[in-house]
Amino acid sequence: MWSSKARCVFGGNWKEFSAAKRLLRWTSTVSSKDEEVNAYSWRSHTCGELRADDVGRRVLLCGWVQYVRMNSFITLRDAYGSTQIIANNHKELLSNLPLESVLMVEGKVIRRPEGQTNKNMETGEVEIAATDVQVLNPACDNPPFSIRNHNKANETLRMKHRYLDLRFPEMQRNLRLRSRLFADMRRFLVDRRDFVEVETPTLFRKTPGGAQEFVVPTQKAGMFFSLVQSPQQLKQLLMVGGIDRYFQIARCYRDETSRPDRQPEFTQLDIELSFTDSEGVIKLVEDLLSASLPSFVGVSGHFDRISLSDAMKLYGTDQPDLTMAPQLEDLHVAEGDPVIRALVIPTAAALLSNSERTSILKNAKTFPSCRILTLKFPGSDWEKQLAKLGVDLRMDDLKKSLNLREGDLVYIASDASYKNCSKLLGKLRIDTIKLLRSKNLAGSWDSPGPKFRFVWVEEFPLFELEDDGSLSSTHHPFTAPHPEDVRLLDEQPLRVRGLHYDLVLNGWEIGGGSVRIHNADLQLHILQDILRIDPTSLQHMLTALGSGAPPHAGIALGLDRLMSILVEAPSIRDVIAFPKTAEGHDLLSGSPSTVGDEDLKLYHIKVDKQDDKSTPGRIELKGGYQK
Amino acid sequence: MWSSKARCVFGGNWKEFSAAKRLLRWTSTVSSKDEEVNAYSWRSHTCGELRADDVGRRVLLCGWVQYVRMNSFITLRDAYGSTQIIANNHKELLSNLPLESVLMVEGKVIRRPEGQTNKNMETGEVEIAATDVQVLNPACDNPPFSIRNHNKANETLRMKHRYLDLRFPEMQRNLRLRSRLFADMRRFLVDRRDFVEVETPTLFRKTPGGAQEFVVPTQKAGMFFSLVQSPQQLKQLLMVGGIDRYFQIARCYRDETSRPDRQPEFTQLDIELSFTDSEGVIKLVEDLLSASLPSFVGVSGHFDRISLSDAMKLYGTDQPDLTMAPQLEDLHVAEGDPVIRALVIPTAAALLSNSERTSILKNAKTFPSCRILTLKFPGSDWEKQLAKLGVDLRMDDLKKSLNLREGDLVYIASDASYKNCSKLLGKLRIDTIKLLRSKNLAGSWDSPGPKFRFVWVEEFPLFELEDDGSLSSTHHPFTAPHPEDVRLLDEQPLRVRGLHYDLVLNGWEIGGGSVRIHNADLQLHILQDILRIDPTSLQHMLTALGSGAPPHAGIALGLDRLMSILVEAPSIRDVIAFPKTAEGHDLLSGSPSTVGDEDLKLYHIKVDKQDDKSTPGRIELKGGYQK
Repeated sequence: MWSSKARCVFGGNWKEFSAAKRLLRWTSTVSSKDEEVNAYSWRSHTCGELRADDVGRRVLLCGWVQYVRMNSFITLRDAYGSTQIIANNHKELLSNLPLESVLMVEGKVIRRPEGQTNKNMETGEVEIAATDVQVLNPACDNPPFSIRNHNKANETLRMKHRYLDLRFPEMQRNLRLRSRLFADMRRFLVDRRDFVEVETPTLFRKTPGGAQEFVVPTQKAGMFFSLVQSPQQLKQLLMVGGIDRYFQIARCYRDETSRPDRQPEFTQLDIELSFTDSEGVIKLVEDLLSASLPSFVGVSGHFDRISLSDAMKLYGTDQPDLTMAPQLEDLHVAEGDPVIRALVIPTAAALLSNSERTSILKNAKTFPSCRILTLKFPGSDWEKQLAKLGVDLRMDDLKKSLNLREGDLVYIASDASYKNCSKLLGKLRIDTIKLLRSKNLAGSWDSPGPKFRFVWVEEFPLFELEDDGSLSSTHHPFTAPHPEDVRLLDEQPLRVRGLHYDLVLNGWEIGGGSVRIHNADLQLHILQDILRIDPTSLQHMLTALGSGAPPHAGIALGLDRLMSILVEAPSIRDVIAFPKTAEGHDLLSGSPSTVGDEDLKLYHIKVDKQDDKSTPGRIELKGGYQK
Repeated sequence: MWSSKARCVFGGNWKEFSAAKRLLRWTSTVSSKDEEVNAYSWRSHTCGELRADDVGRRVLLCGWVQYVRMNSFITLRDAYGSTQIIANNHKELLSNLPLESVLMVEGKVIRRPEGQTNKNMETGEVEIAATDVQVLNPACDNPPFSIRNHNKANETLRMKHRYLDLRFPEMQRNLRLRSRLFADMRRFLVDRRDFVEVETPTLFRKTPGGAQEFVVPTQKAGMFFSLVQSPQQLKQLLMVGGIDRYFQIARCYRDETSRPDRQPEFTQLDIELSFTDSEGVIKLVEDLLSASLPSFVGVSGHFDRISLSDAMKLYGTDQPDLTMAPQLEDLHVAEGDPVIRALVIPTAAALLSNSERTSILKNAKTFPSCRILTLKFPGSDWEKQLAKLGVDLRMDDLKKSLNLREGDLVYIASDASYKNCSKLLGKLRIDTIKLLRSKNLAGSWDSPGPKFRFVWVEEFPLFELEDDGSLSSTHHPFTAPHPEDVRLLDEQPLRVRGLHYDLVLNGWEIGGGSVRIHNADLQLHILQDILRIDPTSLQHMLTALGSGAPPHAGIALGLDRLMSILVEAPSIRDVIAFPKTAEGHDLLSGSPSTVGDEDLKLYHIKVDKQDDKSTPGRIELKGGYQK
């Protein structure tokens, strides 16, 4: 009986399988329809490719047991689809065979009987009359979750058994689309635009400022590498080295466990060009994305562009989502008075419950000084509500200036700070429309036009004021100042614009870049005298800039985020094969984990305070090894 | 005077340059010949592309000052070549302009005067009559070494100023060829064979056994990631997850500072397939390399194959160099007697000096018990020399059996161990022929046929005996035993063959792979009972193998080594943009380096014994920033 043999009993079975397989080899003589995807493999076809045209063909399929019915009907699945197998002569083999066991099936393609075709299955017109069924590898048990519906509920279990989670069609699609997109990006850059992909080191020197970098101890006591947070310095050094058109799909590292939906290691498309400026980079990225994004994204040609101040004014954020139509409006902006701004979500008043509105408001209330009104138009309590703002506003005037129609939802915010008002309304704009969309409601809050909307955000200030009165770089210390503002550097640094540009897609920043400083003296002055950063750890950059550095500019696109938006995944974890949890843990392998004393000694480090070490153990599987 | 302005004085100059540049933009109206390489750039042409056909064209070039003659003739260089500029009206600008300064030149292509064409220069028929010359960025000083001849002598200086070293045509060619090769590999795998490139994490759990892995402390006290030495486990987990055709050009990490010409981080082409075996992988790699290697490599179709024992017997190594013709021969192999083996280097006797022969012998003498004779054929002292071996051998007999001809160099080795004899002769074979080749001598020691010779080495034992009597994996613990040998696992493990294959190119192992164990019980048995490895750190692998793991096999190719062989570079450092030294140091950035106390505290580590910390300093450049 299989029930006593299949459960991981290796021994004899395995040897039988091996011998049988070796007769077939990969140079099987059974006919192959699609050479590419089946080349070098035992199978003649994937489980997703047989059609009515193939009836009569002798085929060999390999795949996983999705389902067995009456010990005769197998649904065999692989990454490409599933196919029904009829195996009337293998009832014993199939009885109690655990789901997800791996089979090899040889047989003949037959047409399904009248009335039994399955229109929901791409192979639903045919089935395989099996002549031979072999268990290549039995699963030990039925899986901890079923590979039928992508159960998002228990992500912990999915992460722990990621090899099972990857079998879902959604994960297969995400990873395969990712591979396809990256290949198309490379094709455009290398074949059509003569870029050179250069791999830069990840074990490098700590960059002053910026994100927290992982440190890597070396066998030299007290000496550490840092894992690069981006190839920024290295790509600039390539420009100095004459690699004038560089790109890399680069692994980067940031130890930022506190930020949600970030990964300690992530992937960016890193680009840098010599003898160019912002316009060159912007045009390049537009051409690149138009050429490489899947056709369903529907992107081509130029992207919208907006200044940072207009983005704050119209959308209350530096990452505007242009798929949403409503824009913020000024109601009252006068010197000395509180600012009053408004946002109208057309026709939405009756579509949200009181509790939903309350929840949105509560969620957005990150600016406690802001006063916020939520009004339905028309409404009886407008006068009373508006009076609270201390400025003479009337519903009839607002109806005209805001172009209000019956059923509109109106948010009005008031605060001493224009920025606070705007950011609050910006948050309400996003949350309200996302909630409406989650209820499968479409409305005039949706912008007409494509589902994916790229926009460039420009004209960022070069510096920001820190709480302690010092200046920090808005982006990074290598960004060039706007040439017209160089003369303001010493006296009015906060008025200096940087030659920086962000790329935003549907409300997410997916990239940022800039023209870089190519002059050593300007770089030193900004580091040393304005940012007060110790320049010694950047000596190599300064020397390089003084050695004949061409003017250069570039960008980095966050590919995990881009992918997650394209496939509408709730998290970037869904577009990464083996992600860490939000806490930075790998539940699959159980890392991070303790290391042995010999490693600590080799790297001359001691652990300040250590958790209990797990003791080595011994594993017993259920089956055991049969000698 | 430029001499007082050019030396890194930023101020006014920079602003002028900026303003001028902005008039041009990247959408320059000057005509462009080759759209691809100049797209998004100010330049209309590279410094390597103008020809006689272009005479009369108005062009804009950007590049580095290679040379200035009479303050009028500039040789302007970029990565693509160099072009002569005549700038009669810019003598002041050019006087004392440091070499390697960056210029933008606008002008008209003219034919060089009769008799002044330069046949050594691809652009040698033309020159540019400059109408405008702008210094985009002056170099601070003449460079520490000239960018004219690739001076390999002082590698330390080259590494410290890698951004200058990269300007050499050799380094440009190496990095560009690397990018091209990788793009072609990806094209074959993705477009023609439906493989999926998946990025696997580098922050993972330590693999028991194998190379020393870097550890990465985390913010959780005592808990560490390891940097992966290869994606071995992860790609097997992908197979379990149904990504049945995986590849990745993967960054890998090994902390092996003691091995020469290794890098702490390196790049491998990592491949894995489901439902296949050795033959499938071998065919795939042959197709892949035939399709993607540059045409000058001249590789196509099937590669040679040899068993490990034949490789040792014929070439005295597991990495045979088939571009060399001589093979090792048995002279006397009899039970109880010392083994006597011979190697003939045809016609080489008179081509090496006594001191060269002595040096080769000294270099090869790593097997002290081996007795070695170096003989010229014919020679008067043969009888005396051969008598030392204690076996009855005569020159006349050897002449016949070894097919000796006048002038041949003959090595004869004698030792109790067949392997020692073979390895010594194998080393002499390589060193002698390499020395002959380094003297630009060609001879019948060179195999006829292609310059690049791939060979598969097969039939490795699965286990090796350690000095302490324990068993270790010859390759890694995931390699499957030969099915016929599974029954020998417990009783005669050293006789078990592994389903492993190495790929060797010109005497270098450039790749290795195997069929993997797909059965959980077999994997556990080998780990726990044969290798005596604590399986708890591999629990995830065992659970995965028990969850429906398809049979699978794969390979990894070392791309740095492959590249260095293809471009005939003396070190893999010459095919890596920013390599570490043999000691694992980055001379460019000065890393590894110390880290601050806040990092040590964040990661809960203390340094056992620390070198003096470098104190933060202040940098003064020569020019200073002009306000």
